[in-house]
Amino acid sequence: MAKYSDLAHLLRSRIEMGMYQEGQRLPSVRILSAEHGVSLGTVQQAYRLLEEQGLASPAPKSGHFVSRKQHVYLLPTMRDSERTPLDILEWDEIYKVTANTPDEGVLQLGRGMPSVDTPTLKPLMKSLSHEAKRWQKDGLNYENIKGNLELRTQISRLIIDSGCLIGPNEIIITAGCQEALMCSIRSICSQGDIVVVESPSFHGAIQTLKVCGIKVIEVPSHPLTGIDLESLELIAEQWPIRAVLVNPNCNNPLGYVMPNERKEALVTLSRTFGFFIIEDDTYGDLTFSYPRPQTIKSLDTEGKVILCGSFSKTLAPGLRVGWVVPGTFYDKVLHTKYISSGATATANQRAIAEFMSKGLYQIHLRRMRINYKANRELMTNWISKYFNAGIRVSRPQGGYFLWIELPDGVSAYELSDRLMKHNVQIATGKIFSSSGKYENCIRINYGGLLNDRAEHAIETMGQLVSDLNVSHMLR
Amino acid sequence: MAKYSDLAHLLRSRIEMGMYQEGQRLPSVRILSAEHGVSLGTVQQAYRLLEEQGLASPAPKSGHFVSRKQHVYLLPTMRDSERTPLDILEWDEIYKVTANTPDEGVLQLGRGMPSVDTPTLKPLMKSLSHEAKRWQKDGLNYENIKGNLELRTQISRLIIDSGCLIGPNEIIITAGCQEALMCSIRSICSQGDIVVVESPSFHGAIQTLKVCGIKVIEVPSHPLTGIDLESLELIAEQWPIRAVLVNPNCNNPLGYVMPNERKEALVTLSRTFGFFIIEDDTYGDLTFSYPRPQTIKSLDTEGKVILCGSFSKTLAPGLRVGWVVPGTFYDKVLHTKYISSGATATANQRAIAEFMSKGLYQIHLRRMRINYKANRELMTNWISKYFNAGIRVSRPQGGYFLWIELPDGVSAYELSDRLMKHNVQIATGKIFSSSGKYENCIRINYGGLLNDRAEHAIETMGQLVSDLNVSHMLR
Repeated sequence: MAKYSDLAHLLRSRIEMGMYQEGQRLPSVRILSAEHGVSLGTVQQAYRLLEEQGLASPAPKSGHFVSRKQHVYLLPTMRDSERTPLDILEWDEIYKVTANTPDEGVLQLGRGMPSVDTPTLKPLMKSLSHEAKRWQKDGLNYENIKGNLELRTQISRLIIDSGCLIGPNEIIITAGCQEALMCSIRSICSQGDIVVVESPSFHGAIQTLKVCGIKVIEVPSHPLTGIDLESLELIAEQWPIRAVLVNPNCNNPLGYVMPNERKEALVTLSRTFGFFIIEDDTYGDLTFSYPRPQTIKSLDTEGKVILCGSFSKTLAPGLRVGWVVPGTFYDKVLHTKYISSGATATANQRAIAEFMSKGLYQIHLRRMRINYKANRELMTNWISKYFNAGIRVSRPQGGYFLWIELPDGVSAYELSDRLMKHNVQIATGKIFSSSGKYENCIRINYGGLLNDRAEHAIETMGQLVSDLNVSHMLR
Repeated sequence: MAKYSDLAHLLRSRIEMGMYQEGQRLPSVRILSAEHGVSLGTVQQAYRLLEEQGLASPAPKSGHFVSRKQHVYLLPTMRDSERTPLDILEWDEIYKVTANTPDEGVLQLGRGMPSVDTPTLKPLMKSLSHEAKRWQKDGLNYENIKGNLELRTQISRLIIDSGCLIGPNEIIITAGCQEALMCSIRSICSQGDIVVVESPSFHGAIQTLKVCGIKVIEVPSHPLTGIDLESLELIAEQWPIRAVLVNPNCNNPLGYVMPNERKEALVTLSRTFGFFIIEDDTYGDLTFSYPRPQTIKSLDTEGKVILCGSFSKTLAPGLRVGWVVPGTFYDKVLHTKYISSGATATANQRAIAEFMSKGLYQIHLRRMRINYKANRELMTNWISKYFNAGIRVSRPQGGYFLWIELPDGVSAYELSDRLMKHNVQIATGKIFSSSGKYENCIRINYGGLLNDRAEHAIETMGQLVSDLNVSHMLR
């Protein structure tokens, strides 16, 4: 691991052990540099990491302070995995979260929806509306099966920020990231293959593996640094892993950004053991720090990584536009895409291309990063205000999900059930596992409007968790 | 077979043998009724069938006449099939037709595109534009995974015309018919299964079977009545057929409408041999006669038929909205749809729902049926004017495709190559077979604007075919 992250780790342990109290001043950059024999830059980098993790706050000209306690909940625990290939459980619960369009009256904290009522999206809607009006033009016809060329060109430029030099002809546009993942999985894997997933993991990816008849091994993720590489190595020694499916930047559901040196280590493992990496970068552009983190793809020199991306979480999911950079699997992925849904919806692609070519996507992203970061603060404040039981909470470095581990024995399913009576919907932890783990975990979305109603929902949630905890203790 | 189609068959043979000459009056309804001992209604029905097939034309108060010769080209020949399960050939040629968006300068007669520059589509574009402007509303968010409820309700009403009583909750909206077919095939079949397809057959369906690792048996289709049921029965006796994939209404590429009694016979076979029927009704609403023909699904009482439909060919392919009625495979198809592309694009669904709820879809269909029928006449006129070699031509009863069998030894591929130098693109017959058949066949689209340029393209085509035929004879 790099020096700065070692140092950050040390400081974090000290904060968590109570050596530095909430609001207290942390050692200066100069002192730490001398104490640990590292450069000033390294200490500054370590502090930046602690800031991103919500542990330290900078104060102008007076160094760093331990952030207020509400931000230093214990991190969610890593669950031991079975370390053997498993069949994936049924999808009934996921269906409940995804299949029903809830009434207008339900506050949807459970779904993976970005905020779409921001003025920075207005020009996109104008482009779309404009496209729709060109009724005599070919906007109604099939788009190129690879995707609109202008859009591919824009994406090619966009992903330079993540360290990738990829030409428009290496990109295929898909109906959202889900189709990108599905085509990648179907192109790389056959029925009966073994794929490693992070635990917890995005349910759409797990279910895709299920439908494809693939067995999975879950490898626990550290809530700040991602998939546990030591476990992964042990597993790869024992099993013929075909691919590893990861969501390393602003992970769904944990919100971590995998540090670069760990990304590099994963690429090295892929070379050693010959597995492929399917990288889901859906949330990467929503990292709170700027510039955005690199993709694993950008570190790949041997064509081991397939990169999947999307506008569903940065612009709007209803547009159904994502992409894939399939590398050596290009022909197979394109063929799979062709038989899956043909070309992607025409006007939607053209509208996004126009939006991007005017530089409006970056403006929109900047705003969303600021909004989501502010929302993360507000949501964690509410949680520390309304939850009194011993919970553990993730520290997202981007995106708009918070992962909450409820006290042992408190059923997320029961909580979800009771909350629905208050017209509040959440995602239960179980759907993020292929084997029924995380029964006492929930994922909530802080991306939407955090108004009085949302605060009241968190208050109710805190109360219900306490109630459930008490009844569990009395049992 | 029903009496009226027996009678029509007899009359057709007589016309084709030259017993009744072009422009000559055909026997009156009364005489035929007496001669064959059938009711007046039966004769009338037989004449209606001949009209649809372009063989007879009614004249007010003076009976029926043999249509002008240009309409009575010999029908394309039925090709013998191997009658054993085959692996499907590569898709390189299909890729050429579908993958490249040609320059504006190319006249695309090869693609499966409807005419989209009709004023009856204008309100749809208005709805879409209107949807796009509701930028603060949930039009940007995920739609219900089953599809927009209003749209499913409208489809449920629409398909009553094809004889189906299907509720909105039995319908799943998909990203075009291609996704409907793919989800159906993946839900019903496993790798290694055997599926029967019509020959010739829609390339998207064949390629889906290929990607799914399915073996196919091609059963020849009669150019007026569809899949040869006698061959099918022989094959089903010999092989464990999992499913039969058919496109019975305005077949792509042959344009036939399978007669009802043959549809019934197919359903009976499915019961006898236990196979499923995947029915692609993409073009059914474009049948020239009204009311539109029944679907096979409407004759199915035992849940053996999965119905797939689409707005791609009736409204616009760029919208990517289709549907599937999966019957007993509902859960599996929905799960496959969820992992394939998630929900279908939101605004597109809502715009179509609005368009339909105002009754505008039926108005649009009426107009398209008239346009396409007129275009069929014009195109066949051009063909008889500009082709002098001995070709065979299909007699489409709906849709906008003409299937032309060139003289033996004339390569469609060669023709296509030469035509591209004149900026005219056609579909070569080979892509409609899983085993390289139809090398001397082409499919052309008469749905678009048949202006001077189009006429000139047909003239060039006729000349090139003659040239190719001569050089073949001299070889």
